[in-house]
Amino acid sequence: MEIINKLQWRYATKAFSPNKIVPTEKLDIIKQAFNLTASSYGLQPIKLVVLADKNLQAKLLEYSFNQKQIIQASHVLILCIQTNIDKEFVTNYFDRVHKIRNTPKHILKPFEEFLIDDFEKKSQKDIENWAINQAYLALGNLMTVCAIEGLDSCPMEGFVPEKYDELLELNKQGLKSVLLLPIGYRDEKDMFAEFKKVRKKITDSIIEL
Amino acid sequence: MEIINKLQWRYATKAFSPNKIVPTEKLDIIKQAFNLTASSYGLQPIKLVVLADKNLQAKLLEYSFNQKQIIQASHVLILCIQTNIDKEFVTNYFDRVHKIRNTPKHILKPFEEFLIDDFEKKSQKDIENWAINQAYLALGNLMTVCAIEGLDSCPMEGFVPEKYDELLELNKQGLKSVLLLPIGYRDEKDMFAEFKKVRKKITDSIIEL
Repeated sequence: MEIINKLQWRYATKAFSPNKIVPTEKLDIIKQAFNLTASSYGLQPIKLVVLADKNLQAKLLEYSFNQKQIIQASHVLILCIQTNIDKEFVTNYFDRVHKIRNTPKHILKPFEEFLIDDFEKKSQKDIENWAINQAYLALGNLMTVCAIEGLDSCPMEGFVPEKYDELLELNKQGLKSVLLLPIGYRDEKDMFAEFKKVRKKITDSIIEL
Repeated sequence: MEIINKLQWRYATKAFSPNKIVPTEKLDIIKQAFNLTASSYGLQPIKLVVLADKNLQAKLLEYSFNQKQIIQASHVLILCIQTNIDKEFVTNYFDRVHKIRNTPKHILKPFEEFLIDDFEKKSQKDIENWAINQAYLALGNLMTVCAIEGLDSCPMEGFVPEKYDELLELNKQGLKSVLLLPIGYRDEKDMFAEFKKVRKKITDSIIEL
Protein backbone atom coordinates (compact mmCIF):
# COMPACT_ATOMS: atom_id res chain seq x y z
CA MET A 1 0.00 0.00 0.00
CA GLU A 2 3.01 2.28 -0.09
CA ILE A 3 1.89 3.67 -3.45
CA ILE A 4 -1.50 4.61 -1.96
CA ASN A 5 0.25 6.58 0.78
CA LYS A 6 2.22 8.41 -1.91
CA LEU A 7 -0.95 9.19 -3.86
CA GLN A 8 -2.58 10.41 -0.64
CA TRP A 9 0.44 12.63 0.05
CA ARG A 10 0.19 14.22 -3.39
CA TYR A 11 -2.03 17.28 -3.79
CA ALA A 12 -2.37 20.09 -6.29
CA THR A 13 0.29 22.29 -4.73
CA LYS A 14 -0.83 25.90 -4.49
CA ALA A 15 2.37 27.35 -3.01
CA PHE A 16 5.89 26.14 -3.74
CA SER A 17 8.96 26.95 -1.71
CA PRO A 18 10.72 29.29 -4.15
CA ASN A 19 14.26 28.44 -3.04
CA LYS A 20 14.14 24.66 -3.18
CA ILE A 21 15.43 23.28 -6.46
CA VAL A 22 14.70 19.82 -7.85
CA PRO A 23 18.09 18.05 -8.14
CA THR A 24 19.39 16.79 -11.49
CA GLU A 25 18.99 13.10 -10.54
CA LYS A 26 15.27 13.61 -9.89
CA LEU A 27 14.83 15.57 -13.11
CA ASP A 28 16.47 12.71 -14.98
CA ILE A 29 13.90 10.33 -13.55
CA ILE A 30 11.07 12.63 -14.64
CA LYS A 31 12.48 12.94 -18.15
CA GLN A 32 12.96 9.20 -18.53
CA ALA A 33 9.51 8.50 -17.10
CA PHE A 34 8.00 10.89 -19.63
CA ASN A 35 9.79 9.20 -22.51
CA LEU A 36 8.76 5.75 -21.25
CA THR A 37 5.05 6.64 -21.12
CA ALA A 38 2.96 4.38 -23.33
CA SER A 39 1.30 6.06 -26.30
CA SER A 40 -1.22 5.19 -28.98
CA TYR A 41 0.52 2.86 -31.50
CA GLY A 42 3.76 3.81 -29.73
CA LEU A 43 3.93 6.97 -31.85
CA GLN A 44 4.75 9.43 -29.02
CA PRO A 45 3.11 12.52 -30.55
CA ILE A 46 4.18 14.64 -27.58
CA LYS A 47 7.20 16.47 -26.21
CA LEU A 48 8.05 17.77 -22.77
CA VAL A 49 9.46 21.23 -22.16
CA VAL A 50 11.41 21.47 -18.91
CA LEU A 51 11.50 25.15 -18.05
CA ALA A 52 13.74 26.59 -15.35
CA ASP A 53 14.23 30.23 -16.22
CA LYS A 54 12.93 32.75 -13.72
CA ASN A 55 12.68 35.48 -16.35
CA LEU A 56 10.55 33.36 -18.64
CA GLN A 57 8.51 32.07 -15.71
CA ALA A 58 7.80 35.69 -14.70
CA LYS A 59 6.71 36.54 -18.24
CA LEU A 60 4.39 33.52 -18.36
CA LEU A 61 2.61 34.47 -15.15
CA GLU A 62 0.10 36.74 -16.86
CA TYR A 63 -0.75 33.97 -19.32
CA SER A 64 -1.35 31.56 -16.44
CA PHE A 65 -4.18 33.46 -14.75
CA ASN A 66 -1.61 34.75 -12.26
CA GLN A 67 -1.21 31.38 -10.61
CA LYS A 68 1.94 31.90 -8.55
CA GLN A 69 3.10 28.30 -8.92
CA ILE A 70 4.47 29.29 -12.33
CA ILE A 71 7.05 31.60 -10.79
CA GLN A 72 7.62 29.77 -7.50
CA ALA A 73 8.11 26.25 -8.83
CA SER A 74 11.60 24.89 -9.27
CA HIS A 75 10.73 23.75 -12.79
CA VAL A 76 7.65 24.13 -14.97
CA LEU A 77 6.94 21.08 -17.10
CA ILE A 78 5.01 21.92 -20.26
CA LEU A 79 3.41 19.01 -22.07
CA CYS A 80 3.13 19.72 -25.78
CA ILE A 81 1.65 17.93 -28.73
CA GLN A 82 3.39 17.77 -32.07
CA THR A 83 1.21 19.20 -34.81
CA ASN A 84 3.01 17.59 -37.76
CA ILE A 85 1.66 14.04 -37.57
CA ASP A 86 2.27 13.30 -41.23
CA LYS A 87 3.75 10.53 -43.34
CA GLU A 88 7.31 11.44 -42.32
CA PHE A 89 6.37 11.32 -38.64
CA VAL A 90 4.94 7.81 -38.97
CA THR A 91 7.89 6.65 -41.09
CA ASN A 92 10.33 7.95 -38.50
CA TYR A 93 8.60 5.77 -35.91
CA PHE A 94 8.98 2.64 -38.04
CA ASP A 95 12.62 3.52 -38.68
CA ARG A 96 13.09 3.50 -34.90
CA VAL A 97 11.39 0.10 -34.62
CA HIS A 98 13.65 -1.22 -37.37
CA LYS A 99 16.81 0.15 -35.76
CA ILE A 100 16.02 -0.74 -32.14
CA ARG A 101 14.48 -4.19 -32.67
CA ASN A 102 16.13 -5.10 -35.96
CA THR A 103 12.69 -5.98 -37.36
CA PRO A 104 12.94 -6.42 -41.15
CA LYS A 105 11.34 -3.54 -43.07
CA HIS A 106 9.03 -5.81 -45.09
CA ILE A 107 7.50 -7.07 -41.84
CA LEU A 108 6.81 -3.52 -40.69
CA LYS A 109 5.61 -2.19 -44.05
CA PRO A 110 1.92 -3.26 -44.00
CA PHE A 111 1.27 -1.67 -40.59
CA GLU A 112 3.27 1.41 -41.56
CA GLU A 113 1.12 1.85 -44.67
CA PHE A 114 -2.04 1.28 -42.69
CA LEU A 115 -1.09 4.00 -40.20
CA ILE A 116 -0.04 6.50 -42.87
CA ASP A 117 -3.35 5.94 -44.60
CA ASP A 118 -5.28 6.11 -41.33
CA PHE A 119 -3.76 9.45 -40.33
CA GLU A 120 -4.19 10.91 -43.81
CA LYS A 121 -7.94 10.31 -43.47
CA LYS A 122 -8.17 12.15 -40.15
CA SER A 123 -8.75 15.89 -39.86
CA GLN A 124 -6.06 18.02 -38.23
CA LYS A 125 -8.50 18.61 -35.36
CA ASP A 126 -8.99 14.87 -34.80
CA ILE A 127 -5.25 14.27 -34.91
CA GLU A 128 -4.69 17.00 -32.34
CA ASN A 129 -7.37 15.56 -30.05
CA TRP A 130 -5.73 12.16 -30.35
CA ALA A 131 -2.38 13.67 -29.45
CA ILE A 132 -3.90 15.64 -26.55
CA ASN A 133 -5.21 12.35 -25.12
CA GLN A 134 -1.64 11.07 -25.09
CA ALA A 135 -0.51 14.19 -23.26
CA TYR A 136 -3.06 13.51 -20.52
CA LEU A 137 -1.86 9.91 -20.30
CA ALA A 138 1.70 11.17 -19.83
CA LEU A 139 0.52 13.67 -17.21
CA GLY A 140 -1.10 10.82 -15.25
CA ASN A 141 2.18 8.93 -15.30
CA LEU A 142 4.29 12.00 -14.40
CA MET A 143 2.14 13.04 -11.44
CA THR A 144 2.43 9.56 -9.96
CA VAL A 145 6.17 9.41 -10.58
CA CYS A 146 6.57 12.83 -8.94
CA ALA A 147 4.66 11.60 -5.88
CA ILE A 148 6.85 8.48 -5.67
CA GLU A 149 9.96 10.63 -5.85
CA GLY A 150 8.72 13.04 -3.17
CA LEU A 151 8.26 15.89 -5.61
CA ASP A 152 5.28 18.19 -5.34
CA SER A 153 3.40 19.13 -8.46
CA CYS A 154 0.33 20.98 -9.63
CA PRO A 155 -1.49 19.91 -12.79
CA MET A 156 -2.82 22.94 -14.69
CA GLU A 157 -5.17 23.16 -17.65
CA GLY A 158 -5.85 26.86 -17.07
CA PHE A 159 -3.41 28.96 -19.09
CA VAL A 160 -3.22 30.61 -22.50
CA PRO A 161 -1.48 28.03 -24.71
CA GLU A 162 -1.12 30.37 -27.71
CA LYS A 163 0.85 32.85 -25.60
CA TYR A 164 3.07 30.11 -24.20
CA ASP A 165 3.72 28.82 -27.73
CA GLU A 166 4.62 32.29 -28.94
CA LEU A 167 6.77 33.33 -26.00
CA LEU A 168 8.70 30.06 -25.84
CA GLU A 169 8.75 29.76 -29.65
CA LEU A 170 7.13 26.35 -29.45
CA ASN A 171 5.10 27.11 -32.58
CA LYS A 172 8.35 27.37 -34.56
CA GLN A 173 9.10 23.80 -33.51
CA GLY A 174 5.69 22.47 -34.59
CA LEU A 175 4.47 22.20 -31.01
CA LYS A 176 1.36 23.27 -29.13
CA SER A 177 1.37 23.40 -25.34
CA VAL A 178 -1.58 21.63 -23.74
CA LEU A 179 -0.84 21.03 -20.06
CA LEU A 180 1.39 22.44 -17.33
CA LEU A 181 2.92 20.70 -14.36
CA PRO A 182 4.96 22.99 -12.13
CA ILE A 183 7.12 20.81 -9.88
CA GLY A 184 9.19 21.43 -6.77
CA TYR A 185 8.62 21.39 -3.05
CA ARG A 186 5.55 22.58 -1.19
CA ASP A 187 5.77 25.73 0.88
CA GLU A 188 5.29 24.65 4.47
CA LYS A 189 2.72 27.39 4.87
CA ASP A 190 0.52 26.12 2.00
CA MET A 191 -2.72 25.47 3.87
CA PHE A 192 -4.02 23.34 0.98
CA ALA A 193 -1.52 20.64 1.96
CA GLU A 194 -3.56 19.90 5.07
CA PHE A 195 -6.95 19.80 3.36
CA LYS A 196 -8.65 16.43 3.25
CA LYS A 197 -8.87 14.91 -0.20
CA VAL A 198 -12.32 15.20 -1.74
CA ARG A 199 -13.20 12.03 -3.59
CA LYS A 200 -16.31 10.04 -4.40
CA LYS A 201 -16.97 7.06 -2.18
CA ILE A 202 -15.13 4.13 -3.71
CA THR A 203 -18.49 2.41 -4.28
CA ASP A 204 -19.60 5.40 -6.39
CA SER A 205 -16.40 5.27 -8.41
CA ILE A 206 -16.05 1.54 -9.10
CA ILE A 207 -18.48 -0.90 -10.68
CA GLU A 208 -17.70 -4.61 -10.26
CA LEU A 209 -18.97 -7.07 -12.82
CA MET B 1 15.70 4.88 -10.15
CA GLU B 2 13.56 1.97 -9.02
CA ILE B 3 10.50 3.50 -10.68
CA ILE B 4 12.35 3.64 -14.02
CA ASN B 5 13.10 -0.09 -13.75
CA LYS B 6 9.40 -0.70 -13.16
CA LEU B 7 8.44 1.43 -16.17
CA GLN B 8 11.01 -0.45 -18.26
CA TRP B 9 9.56 -3.77 -17.05
CA ARG B 10 6.06 -2.74 -18.14
CA TYR B 11 5.00 -3.48 -21.71
CA ALA B 12 1.69 -3.75 -23.57
CA THR B 13 1.09 -7.39 -22.68
CA LYS B 14 -0.08 -9.38 -25.68
CA ALA B 15 -0.59 -12.73 -23.91
CA PHE B 16 -1.73 -13.17 -20.33
CA SER B 17 -1.45 -16.35 -18.30
CA PRO B 18 -5.13 -17.35 -18.16
CA ASN B 19 -4.94 -19.10 -14.80
CA LYS B 20 -3.22 -16.44 -12.72
CA ILE B 21 -5.66 -14.27 -10.84
CA VAL B 22 -4.93 -10.83 -9.42
CA PRO B 23 -5.42 -11.08 -5.63
CA THR B 24 -7.95 -8.95 -3.80
CA GLU B 25 -5.30 -6.84 -2.03
CA LYS B 26 -3.80 -5.79 -5.37
CA LEU B 27 -7.24 -5.04 -6.79
CA ASP B 28 -7.93 -2.83 -3.80
CA ILE B 29 -4.80 -0.85 -4.55
CA ILE B 30 -5.88 -0.41 -8.17
CA LYS B 31 -9.35 0.73 -7.14
CA GLN B 32 -8.04 3.20 -4.60
CA ALA B 33 -5.43 4.50 -7.03
CA PHE B 34 -8.15 5.09 -9.61
CA ASN B 35 -10.27 7.01 -7.13
CA LEU B 36 -7.26 9.07 -6.02
CA THR B 37 -6.40 10.16 -9.56
CA ALA B 38 -6.45 13.93 -9.94
CA SER B 39 -9.15 15.32 -12.23
CA SER B 40 -10.12 18.63 -13.74
CA TYR B 41 -11.64 20.82 -10.97
CA GLY B 42 -11.68 17.61 -8.88
CA LEU B 43 -14.98 16.65 -10.52
CA GLN B 44 -14.10 13.00 -11.31
CA PRO B 45 -16.31 12.62 -14.40
CA ILE B 46 -15.21 8.99 -14.78
CA LYS B 47 -15.94 5.54 -13.38
CA LEU B 48 -14.01 2.30 -13.48
CA VAL B 49 -15.61 -1.03 -14.32
CA VAL B 50 -13.69 -4.00 -12.92
CA LEU B 51 -14.77 -6.98 -14.97
CA ALA B 52 -13.95 -10.56 -14.00
CA ASP B 53 -16.57 -12.73 -15.69
CA LYS B 54 -15.28 -15.20 -18.24
CA ASN B 55 -18.67 -15.40 -19.98
CA LEU B 56 -18.86 -11.66 -20.47
CA GLN B 57 -15.20 -11.51 -21.44
CA ALA B 58 -15.86 -14.14 -24.12
CA LYS B 59 -18.81 -12.14 -25.45
CA LEU B 60 -16.73 -8.97 -25.59
CA LEU B 61 -13.97 -10.58 -27.63
CA GLU B 62 -15.65 -9.92 -30.98
CA TYR B 63 -16.09 -6.26 -30.04
CA SER B 64 -12.40 -6.04 -29.19
CA PHE B 65 -11.00 -6.92 -32.62
CA ASN B 66 -10.40 -10.43 -31.30
CA GLN B 67 -7.58 -9.33 -29.05
CA LYS B 68 -7.13 -12.35 -26.81
CA GLN B 69 -6.11 -10.32 -23.78
CA ILE B 70 -9.81 -9.66 -23.18
CA ILE B 71 -10.48 -13.32 -22.40
CA GLN B 72 -7.09 -14.26 -20.94
CA ALA B 73 -6.65 -11.40 -18.50
CA SER B 74 -7.50 -11.90 -14.86
CA HIS B 75 -9.55 -8.70 -14.88
CA VAL B 76 -10.53 -6.23 -17.57
CA LEU B 77 -10.58 -2.64 -16.38
CA ILE B 78 -12.95 -0.46 -18.40
CA LEU B 79 -12.53 3.28 -18.00
CA CYS B 80 -15.83 5.06 -18.58
CA ILE B 81 -16.90 8.66 -18.75
CA GLN B 82 -20.13 9.87 -17.17
CA THR B 83 -22.36 11.53 -19.72
CA ASN B 84 -24.57 13.44 -17.29
CA ILE B 85 -22.29 16.32 -16.36
CA ASP B 86 -25.13 18.63 -15.37
CA LYS B 87 -26.02 20.99 -12.54
CA GLU B 88 -26.74 18.10 -10.17
CA PHE B 89 -23.39 16.51 -10.94
CA VAL B 90 -21.53 19.72 -10.06
CA THR B 91 -23.66 20.30 -6.96
CA ASN B 92 -22.93 16.77 -5.73
CA TYR B 93 -19.23 17.56 -5.93
CA PHE B 94 -19.60 20.69 -3.81
CA ASP B 95 -21.71 18.74 -1.32
CA ARG B 96 -18.74 16.35 -0.99
CA VAL B 97 -16.36 19.27 -0.43
CA HIS B 98 -18.70 20.65 2.23
CA LYS B 99 -19.04 17.30 4.01
CA ILE B 100 -15.42 16.19 3.82
CA ARG B 101 -13.71 19.53 4.53
CA ASN B 102 -16.47 21.23 6.45
CA THR B 103 -16.11 24.26 4.17
CA PRO B 104 -19.08 26.63 4.68
CA LYS B 105 -21.50 26.58 1.75
CA HIS B 106 -21.32 30.34 1.20
CA ILE B 107 -17.57 30.05 0.61
CA LEU B 108 -18.11 27.36 -2.00
CA LYS B 109 -21.10 28.98 -3.71
CA PRO B 110 -19.38 31.40 -6.12
CA PHE B 111 -17.14 28.69 -7.59
CA GLU B 112 -20.04 26.25 -7.73
CA GLU B 113 -22.11 28.77 -9.69
CA PHE B 114 -19.19 29.53 -11.97
CA LEU B 115 -18.76 25.83 -12.80
CA ILE B 116 -22.48 25.19 -13.35
CA ASP B 117 -22.57 28.16 -15.70
CA ASP B 118 -19.36 27.08 -17.42
CA PHE B 119 -20.63 23.56 -18.12
CA GLU B 120 -24.04 24.78 -19.26
CA LYS B 121 -22.27 26.78 -21.97
CA LYS B 122 -20.37 23.75 -23.27
CA SER B 123 -21.72 21.37 -25.91
CA GLN B 124 -22.25 17.72 -24.95
CA LYS B 125 -19.40 16.86 -27.34
CA ASP B 126 -17.01 19.26 -25.59
CA ILE B 127 -18.01 17.94 -22.18
CA GLU B 128 -17.38 14.38 -23.32
CA ASN B 129 -13.97 15.30 -24.73
CA TRP B 130 -13.12 16.97 -21.44
CA ALA B 131 -14.18 13.81 -19.57
CA ILE B 132 -12.25 11.58 -21.98
CA ASN B 133 -9.11 13.56 -21.18
CA GLN B 134 -9.62 12.70 -17.52
CA ALA B 135 -9.96 9.02 -18.42
CA TYR B 136 -6.58 9.13 -20.17
CA LEU B 137 -5.08 10.83 -17.11
CA ALA B 138 -6.43 8.01 -14.92
CA LEU B 139 -5.10 5.41 -17.35
CA GLY B 140 -1.62 6.94 -17.08
CA ASN B 141 -1.81 6.66 -13.31
CA LEU B 142 -3.21 3.10 -13.35
CA MET B 143 -0.60 1.74 -15.75
CA THR B 144 2.17 3.08 -13.54
CA VAL B 145 0.54 1.74 -10.37
CA CYS B 146 0.14 -1.68 -12.04
CA ALA B 147 3.84 -1.70 -12.95
CA ILE B 148 4.79 -0.78 -9.37
CA GLU B 149 2.61 -3.60 -8.04
CA GLY B 150 4.06 -6.15 -10.48
CA LEU B 151 0.86 -6.42 -12.48
CA ASP B 152 0.94 -6.68 -16.22
CA SER B 153 -1.46 -4.63 -18.27
CA CYS B 154 -2.31 -3.71 -21.83
CA PRO B 155 -3.82 -0.31 -22.66
CA MET B 156 -6.37 -0.61 -25.47
CA GLU B 157 -8.15 2.06 -27.48
CA GLY B 158 -9.22 -0.41 -30.16
CA PHE B 159 -12.65 -1.81 -29.35
CA VAL B 160 -16.30 -1.04 -30.10
CA PRO B 161 -17.43 1.11 -27.16
CA GLU B 162 -21.12 1.12 -28.17
CA LYS B 163 -21.20 -2.69 -28.01
CA TYR B 164 -19.47 -2.72 -24.64
CA ASP B 165 -21.94 -0.15 -23.33
CA GLU B 166 -24.87 -2.19 -24.56
CA LEU B 167 -23.66 -5.60 -23.43
CA LEU B 168 -22.58 -4.43 -19.98
CA GLU B 169 -25.57 -2.08 -19.71
CA LEU B 170 -23.27 0.86 -19.07
CA ASN B 171 -25.53 3.11 -21.14
CA LYS B 172 -28.32 2.53 -18.59
CA GLN B 173 -25.99 3.94 -15.95
CA GLY B 174 -25.17 7.07 -17.95
CA LEU B 175 -21.72 5.78 -18.83
CA LYS B 176 -19.69 5.47 -22.03
CA SER B 177 -16.67 3.19 -22.15
CA VAL B 178 -13.56 4.88 -23.56
CA LEU B 179 -10.50 2.81 -22.67
CA LEU B 180 -9.65 -0.75 -21.69
CA LEU B 181 -6.89 -2.04 -19.49
CA PRO B 182 -6.80 -5.82 -19.17
CA ILE B 183 -4.62 -6.70 -16.17
CA GLY B 184 -3.04 -9.88 -14.88
CA TYR B 185 0.22 -11.72 -15.37
CA ARG B 186 2.16 -12.11 -18.61
CA ASP B 187 2.27 -15.49 -20.26
CA GLU B 188 5.89 -16.59 -20.08
CA LYS B 189 5.75 -17.42 -23.76
CA ASP B 190 4.70 -13.89 -24.79
CA MET B 191 7.59 -12.98 -27.07
CA PHE B 192 6.65 -9.30 -26.88
CA ALA B 193 7.92 -9.26 -23.30
CA GLU B 194 11.49 -9.58 -24.59
CA PHE B 195 11.21 -6.93 -27.30
CA LYS B 196 13.28 -3.81 -26.73
CA LYS B 197 11.24 -0.71 -25.99
CA VAL B 198 10.95 1.63 -28.96
CA ARG B 199 11.24 5.22 -27.84
CA LYS B 200 12.51 8.49 -29.22
CA LYS B 201 15.97 9.52 -28.09
CA ILE B 202 15.53 11.46 -24.88
CA THR B 203 16.96 14.54 -26.63
CA ASP B 204 14.15 14.30 -29.23
CA SER B 205 11.54 14.02 -26.50
CA ILE B 206 12.64 16.72 -24.08
CA ILE B 207 13.29 20.42 -24.63
CA GLU B 208 15.15 22.26 -21.87
CA LEU B 209 14.65 25.98 -21.47
